[in-house]
Amino acid sequence: MRLMRIGQPGAERPVALREDGTHADLSGVLDPERAWSFEDLERARAALADAPAVDVGDERVGSPLPRPGIVVCIGLNYRDHAAETNAQVPSEPVLFLKMPSTVVGPFDEVLVPRGSEKTDYEVELGVVLGRRARYLESAEEGLAAVAGYVVSHDVSEREFQIERGGTWDKGKNCETFNPLGPWFVTADEVPDPTSLALRCWVDGELRQDGTTADMVFGVGELVHYLSRFMVLEAGDVVNTGTPAGVALGQPDPKPYLRAGQVVECEIEGLGRMRQRTGAA
Amino acid sequence: MRLMRIGQPGAERPVALREDGTHADLSGVLDPERAWSFEDLERARAALADAPAVDVGDERVGSPLPRPGIVVCIGLNYRDHAAETNAQVPSEPVLFLKMPSTVVGPFDEVLVPRGSEKTDYEVELGVVLGRRARYLESAEEGLAAVAGYVVSHDVSEREFQIERGGTWDKGKNCETFNPLGPWFVTADEVPDPTSLALRCWVDGELRQDGTTADMVFGVGELVHYLSRFMVLEAGDVVNTGTPAGVALGQPDPKPYLRAGQVVECEIEGLGRMRQRTGAA
Repeated sequence: MRLMRIGQPGAERPVALREDGTHADLSGVLDPERAWSFEDLERARAALADAPAVDVGDERVGSPLPRPGIVVCIGLNYRDHAAETNAQVPSEPVLFLKMPSTVVGPFDEVLVPRGSEKTDYEVELGVVLGRRARYLESAEEGLAAVAGYVVSHDVSEREFQIERGGTWDKGKNCETFNPLGPWFVTADEVPDPTSLALRCWVDGELRQDGTTADMVFGVGELVHYLSRFMVLEAGDVVNTGTPAGVALGQPDPKPYLRAGQVVECEIEGLGRMRQRTGAA
Repeated sequence: MRLMRIGQPGAERPVALREDGTHADLSGVLDPERAWSFEDLERARAALADAPAVDVGDERVGSPLPRPGIVVCIGLNYRDHAAETNAQVPSEPVLFLKMPSTVVGPFDEVLVPRGSEKTDYEVELGVVLGRRARYLESAEEGLAAVAGYVVSHDVSEREFQIERGGTWDKGKNCETFNPLGPWFVTADEVPDPTSLALRCWVDGELRQDGTTADMVFGVGELVHYLSRFMVLEAGDVVNTGTPAGVALGQPDPKPYLRAGQVVECEIEGLGRMRQRTGAA
């Protein structure tokens, strides 16, 4: 199943794509604001054929998910990205957090923070939980807790992240710093999350061109690992890291983002997002 | 105004203490689940005298706040605590995050994580926002955005935090790791947040005995600073750091928490919380 949420911020309605290309309005089936569990998604699937059709037309596309309880991010999870940032490949997952309020729609404006000279792009595979994950026993159980996938843009401010003291969170939580979407694609339609091409363009120039096959820690392994340190709930999102090609990894002058540019992120089978950058 | 929330987890009702010592049921005035703004608190104040009385009796006391959007934590914000952990006093605030789901009631059980040998206590002044804080101009504006204060227990697992790679978040987000309460005390009743005694006992033994006068960065300064890196909303919480005396700062063998102990945290004028520790 491929789900979107359309409408103005805070008033999005869930819709799903049907095989005949029409969109089904699932407002009567899925709570537009509360996280969806496996059971919710099963009900949506059962209602898909008979739900009223809706013309998506020119409506704004929001994040395809109700606001998550948390966005957990994995750092340095691609060998080529660790190398380009002069970091060692981690021996166990590196973890940091994004506030739920950083999530915006896939075509919303991304704001370059005031005073920022090092705003950077990162295309990532976003993993969406379908049930509680607490002290899971194995990577298989981890993968079984995954409801589906989204394209996630883990926007980052490198000076705030690295040069201002404290943890990475300082450069990862600016306003609008986590576009998600356009689609939330359920796991049954992504048979192999370990071999998806993912790409990022800035002003039409290809900057990142990787594959999830290069992840250091896989999807099930990450969820299993995280469940030892925190309790994740249905609807929570795990950003699984970014491949090489970010501005931080380029020779000087590094091509950091400034207002007025266009960033596009795409993952095979999950769709493409596109943000214009503005000034905060 | 002094507010509590009483009732079973997920079904708490807001009550306020009146001058005559009775409790007013504010269920009809304050949304029990959504964060409260300055306007909400003004309505509560206006309704206080005429609200129905409620017998708090033996009811469970929950977190005094609806689930926050985020809990932002400040690290190493007391000179004596920085010294005891062999860290430098930071030149600007050190920031990390706690997931909103880590918040529990002030008398709920705190779970020592599986495999943990270094679970630690930290009494902190929790600052509660009353309105959006985004690119504030000054520490005065920062302080003006504060709706009130709570006792916050920033439970920490030091091995997860420091020895497992990645950022501090890994040791700060275990289940039940942020008791709040019992009271949410509005700012008008805390004329000087810069001179509050704060203490923590484990099994009756005084371990932390500090004063907010020793903070490196003050309350208004912190809110002002944070508003440059993230947008905080009404109901969000800032844990402002802990004074010396944590287990990590003691000589070996360090007195880390194990299941079956009792931790009490108190701040002058804000009340005292008490948790028994259990095994996750």
